[in-house]
Amino acid sequence: MAKVTYDKEITALLVIDPYNDFISVGGKVWDRLKGVAGANQCVPHMLQVLNAARKAKIHVFYALHHRYRPGDYETWKYIAPTQKAAWVHKTFENGTWGGEIRSEFEPQPGDIVALEHWCSSGFANTDLDLQLKKHGIHKLIVIGLIAHTCVEATVRFAAELGYEVTMVKDATASYSDEEMHAALDINIPNYASAIVTTKEVVDSIASLCMSDQ
Amino acid sequence: MAKVTYDKEITALLVIDPYNDFISVGGKVWDRLKGVAGANQCVPHMLQVLNAARKAKIHVFYALHHRYRPGDYETWKYIAPTQKAAWVHKTFENGTWGGEIRSEFEPQPGDIVALEHWCSSGFANTDLDLQLKKHGIHKLIVIGLIAHTCVEATVRFAAELGYEVTMVKDATASYSDEEMHAALDINIPNYASAIVTTKEVVDSIASLCMSDQ
Amino acid sequence: MAKVTYDKEITALLVIDPYNDFISVGGKVWDRLKGVAGANQCVPHMLQVLNAARKAKIHVFYALHHRYRPGDYETWKYIAPTQKAAWVHKTFENGTWGGEIRSEFEPQPGDIVALEHWCSSGFANTDLDLQLKKHGIHKLIVIGLIAHTCVEATVRFAAELGYEVTMVKDATASYSDEEMHAALDINIPNYASAIVTTKEVVDSIASLCMSDQ
Amino acid sequence: MAKVTYDKEITALLVIDPYNDFISVGGKVWDRLKGVAGANQCVPHMLQVLNAARKAKIHVFYALHHRYRPGDYETWKYIAPTQKAAWVHKTFENGTWGGEIRSEFEPQPGDIVALEHWCSSGFANTDLDLQLKKHGIHKLIVIGLIAHTCVEATVRFAAELGYEVTMVKDATASYSDEEMHAALDINIPNYASAIVTTKEVVDSIASLCMSDQ
Repeated sequence: MAKVTYDKEITALLVIDPYNDFISVGGKVWDRLKGVAGANQCVPHMLQVLNAARKAKIHVFYALHHRYRPGDYETWKYIAPTQKAAWVHKTFENGTWGGEIRSEFEPQPGDIVALEHWCSSGFANTDLDLQLKKHGIHKLIVIGLIAHTCVEATVRFAAELGYEVTMVKDATASYSDEEMHAALDINIPNYASAIVTTKEVVDSIASLCMSDQ
Repeated sequence: MAKVTYDKEITALLVIDPYNDFISVGGKVWDRLKGVAGANQCVPHMLQVLNAARKAKIHVFYALHHRYRPGDYETWKYIAPTQKAAWVHKTFENGTWGGEIRSEFEPQPGDIVALEHWCSSGFANTDLDLQLKKHGIHKLIVIGLIAHTCVEATVRFAAELGYEVTMVKDATASYSDEEMHAALDINIPNYASAIVTTKEVVDSIASLCMSDQ
Repeated sequence: MAKVTYDKEITALLVIDPYNDFISVGGKVWDRLKGVAGANQCVPHMLQVLNAARKAKIHVFYALHHRYRPGDYETWKYIAPTQKAAWVHKTFENGTWGGEIRSEFEPQPGDIVALEHWCSSGFANTDLDLQLKKHGIHKLIVIGLIAHTCVEATVRFAAELGYEVTMVKDATASYSDEEMHAALDINIPNYASAIVTTKEVVDSIASLCMSDQ
Repeated sequence: MAKVTYDKEITALLVIDPYNDFISVGGKVWDRLKGVAGANQCVPHMLQVLNAARKAKIHVFYALHHRYRPGDYETWKYIAPTQKAAWVHKTFENGTWGGEIRSEFEPQPGDIVALEHWCSSGFANTDLDLQLKKHGIHKLIVIGLIAHTCVEATVRFAAELGYEVTMVKDATASYSDEEMHAALDINIPNYASAIVTTKEVVDSIASLCMSDQ
């Protein structure tokens, strides 16, 4: 079992896109995710990690995808396929339930919610890097959705920008096992220093609480 | 008189911080700005440039300073003097009149409002560069406030990131002539390809309309 | 067959890591790449695309991985797995044959060689984005190595930064078909607007030459 | 007298452009700088701060302007005035004495020399931010040239990116007192947390050595 340890002063939990559209029954994308997410208990695991982090007073950051608003893309000359899809499906539509964070994952006072991003990486064209620096953070524990798009993009950017990343492999999901494999077994191992289970990271975080006493 | 010409396809107007707190009577910073802004007719000039751009169908972008919200700075380990000042004075407080854009400058459908920035540059930690690229923009006409802080910072970043800048020297203001001089005569000439009057830029933009006919 | 067309004024070819260590017999990584690269004729295809671009006067840019130099990593507090590997293997060692560009791919006068990058993306911490903007480029045709690391990273960053990407799927290689599949079939389709064969892109580029006449 | 204290673990000295062209007799720009630089003893002060930092084992970083090479600008569609000037004057020409670092300021093993930048900010389109993060740095002590261009730009970017800055006001120079005033009294106070003399910062750094014993 991987043994990971964290220094609370420089470590943060990064929660990626815990929107109803992704992780709640009735969400626009849930039906495509629920196979993998049900099998690995993604949502309960995400909650366990979040609660463990809060209890240990590890700083919590949110990286959120742009919420669809009318007029977002009409004037663009250049658009990536994933942005076209967001336009067609109006994913995370602003002002709708699907574009709200699932209630158990609501940001709490003191959490940092980064500016919404336009593609897949929580770092691109946002203040996430700035906010992490303002809080002295160098290490990230990453949970959330979707493994091979926003999560992998954010992990890749984190490594490119100098952060040390722990990926929690059963607190994420994709549409299929093949996509999970591409993200978790093929690509992310090049960029994340540790790829662990929820149990492993929760145990490690819990030990921080004890050392406080 | 400087002669400047623009290709509509690759040129945008960038409006910086037209908040009530800056340019409306009763705004938190207006009393410190009104000496310079009154003398050079900053606000009417800004409006003339904006209206000329709209008429010529030049794309309009907004670069806006972060609106103060409670909890913004309490957890930061590192903070710059200008950010401390924003914290103390609650400049552009979110949800208040001071944090609203002055009515004549309200964004119109099709305008692009970039994500709010945390310090002085409209480019830093925002999607301004992305949005400009998505619209194929390479040249910026810059108006707004404050000449030696947000305006100069945004012009400097624009040049660093590869944009060609026109600065409209009587559609901006600072607290004093000395600060205007530092921005407009000492620093910005190194980064902006043209520094023009409102009349010059409005004439140039108006000629674009005629060439459309 | 995919039909792709390009406007020469805003399109560039981006060549990723054509180092001897990757694509020449005797290179440090060639033995791991030659299975896939031999099967899909990666190197001859890369050369066909490069020559077609040169003939059509499409601007050529190079995105290059950091060449190993002693002292690079000893003082780092945080390091990603892919950087640890570069340290151990001294890949693209500066001053050695392995760290030279394979001779047929040598940059020519007028080509732009971006600053070397430290991880996988040709955009991260380099002047690639600036150089593309300085040349008015909005569309990239991407060839080179390795499909699931530097190529995928650069394509992802290109999309995040606002570029429109064409990926040439038989002018790249990975260690295994599974990694090629992860990059070309699972991830890159979300970020590249077109994924084409060498024949398709060369035909399209060749038609630009004819339209010049 | 300002009292500044530093934690060695998170503090670095940033030396900006100590090229012969700037600070050596016979350098291309020296004649324009020597009035101010002579009056405030800029070069001896820079050396005192550098030596104090080395003695205290404070990490030393270099932010260097692009060294002129033939072909740099010929293909650019957009160019800023400061870049036009660099093109005309071939400042810091690569391979010449003027483009070498003045001998007393030569980087030592363990120092970090960031990639060369193209405009004024040591952060723009370089790996400076990455290298600072890889070393866990959050605070910068800044010395070097020229106060109102590269130094001010780098200080502004440092603040925008989340660093805490100390500016050493008599270890920098400009062409005139007016430009020094614009940089040191008007603009940098908004972005640097402390603006100190060489004596103040050297005393503070020296106290770090004592606390090691």
